[in-house]
Amino acid sequence: MNSAMTSRIKLSVAYVLRAARTACGTLPASVHLQHNSYGRQDCLKTGTKHDCSAMDKGRGLIFRQLFEATSSTYTYLLGDLESREAVLIDPVLETVDRDVKLTEELSLSLKVAVNTHCHADHITGTGILKKKLFGCKSAISLHSGAMADIQLSEGDCITFGKHSLVVRETPGHTDGCVTLVLNDQSMAFTGDALLIRGCGRTDFQQGCPQKLYQSVHKKIFTLPGHCLIYPAHDYKGQMVSTVDEERKFNPRLTKTQEEFVEIMDNLNLPKPGKIDTWNGWGAGEEKFGN
Amino acid sequence: MNSAMTSRIKLSVAYVLRAARTACGTLPASVHLQHNSYGRQDCLKTGTKHDCSAMDKGRGLIFRQLFEATSSTYTYLLGDLESREAVLIDPVLETVDRDVKLTEELSLSLKVAVNTHCHADHITGTGILKKKLFGCKSAISLHSGAMADIQLSEGDCITFGKHSLVVRETPGHTDGCVTLVLNDQSMAFTGDALLIRGCGRTDFQQGCPQKLYQSVHKKIFTLPGHCLIYPAHDYKGQMVSTVDEERKFNPRLTKTQEEFVEIMDNLNLPKPGKIDTWNGWGAGEEKFGN
Repeated sequence: MNSAMTSRIKLSVAYVLRAARTACGTLPASVHLQHNSYGRQDCLKTGTKHDCSAMDKGRGLIFRQLFEATSSTYTYLLGDLESREAVLIDPVLETVDRDVKLTEELSLSLKVAVNTHCHADHITGTGILKKKLFGCKSAISLHSGAMADIQLSEGDCITFGKHSLVVRETPGHTDGCVTLVLNDQSMAFTGDALLIRGCGRTDFQQGCPQKLYQSVHKKIFTLPGHCLIYPAHDYKGQMVSTVDEERKFNPRLTKTQEEFVEIMDNLNLPKPGKIDTWNGWGAGEEKFGN
Repeated sequence: MNSAMTSRIKLSVAYVLRAARTACGTLPASVHLQHNSYGRQDCLKTGTKHDCSAMDKGRGLIFRQLFEATSSTYTYLLGDLESREAVLIDPVLETVDRDVKLTEELSLSLKVAVNTHCHADHITGTGILKKKLFGCKSAISLHSGAMADIQLSEGDCITFGKHSLVVRETPGHTDGCVTLVLNDQSMAFTGDALLIRGCGRTDFQQGCPQKLYQSVHKKIFTLPGHCLIYPAHDYKGQMVSTVDEERKFNPRLTKTQEEFVEIMDNLNLPKPGKIDTWNGWGAGEEKFGN
């Protein structure tokens, strides 16, 4: 069948469906199209209440996932709808102006800018954020060795209004990697410990595949299956996963620890983009921004 | 003060805070850090119930936003948790394999692949999707002139399980642009009609700034303020907005219609990446994938 014939057949199907809709108001269920003339929006009334949003009135949480394309980094803004207190996770130097603008537009007051770990692929925006947003504190794991106003360790809570992020130490990519879990365990910000269908590399400073395997299995896979996984990066255009999904489909972390170590030890990856900057993070906040 | 001194002070602050936490279990409220030792996760119990997720059990909706980096296009997967029926909005040719894999991993059955309009910046993935996922139908606006199994017009509903997407015609970028509104009006997929702090161009085939202004003001800005805006593209790493935000902060659509037309007529943008392909969409599904 040539493409012109295919076209005619497609057009015919469309016109038949259109005619059916005009005639009876409802198309065959298999087509999953129902007529609903404008001004008579019956089906608009059948939905459940609004309960899931980037500005979620139901539980009073404002949530935004943001992306920096050069390093494929995700930054997360979480705010309390009532008090307007907010936390920013893993800000990137290049996108600080965007993040400050959005924070202000949403009438949020940024209390803490927190890094899940010392990044080797981008420079954090926390140093500049502190200068631009008065009162904002920086935070990072105590075990990262990096400077920050707040040094985090296991079980600490970063609170913003009635919400909080609970620290779970998840070393393996670096010694100072943490996963930040929203207090209702509906979201986990896993940094580079657990990525969507992947995980952070373990072949440079402090990297240890055995530690990473244990961190993911003991600290992340033990969260509820529906808990959303929000990583620090993704390179395939996926933005979120769940604990259930990663338990089932993560090609590395569904393996035994021995197999995982074998995989991680043989990735032969190129050097990260900002590894030389990362090597020097201890030299001062002015340069590296905590 | 030199950076070495700054570093020492930061370290001191951190150590003081650490000491305070160790001593009394709670840091000053202003720091927004509360101690919560692992194994005694009190604050984990204080959250509200899980009600917002990419797999939202509360209202039975599975939702995924996906990204194609070359054309900065967002694709959206929506599924019904119970029936597993799903709809894919604006799939891109290059990411079809990713989308098929995710659909299968989530145990979804793709019923409809719908384009919000004929895209000039990427080739749609609907043609290939139909071949890979048996039973999937393509859909596009009747006024696009493009071929599809289902031709949509104002007020039509694309149903998947207990959910549906309601068609609002929003011409102006092209004649066949539609906005798809989830039946509870919590989400609107605006294609190129309304972008985050922007809008689609109006300077090529069928583009008309007056029409676009009317479409956005009459069909999108009339939705509830909390309704989430999910566009077909973003170029600054923002993924979602709300009707409220765009009413307040959209630099073009907060202007008068006359000012808007003046802006749109003087953008002097380069030709879209796939405009030559787009010009020929009528030639057959094999090539253009509707």
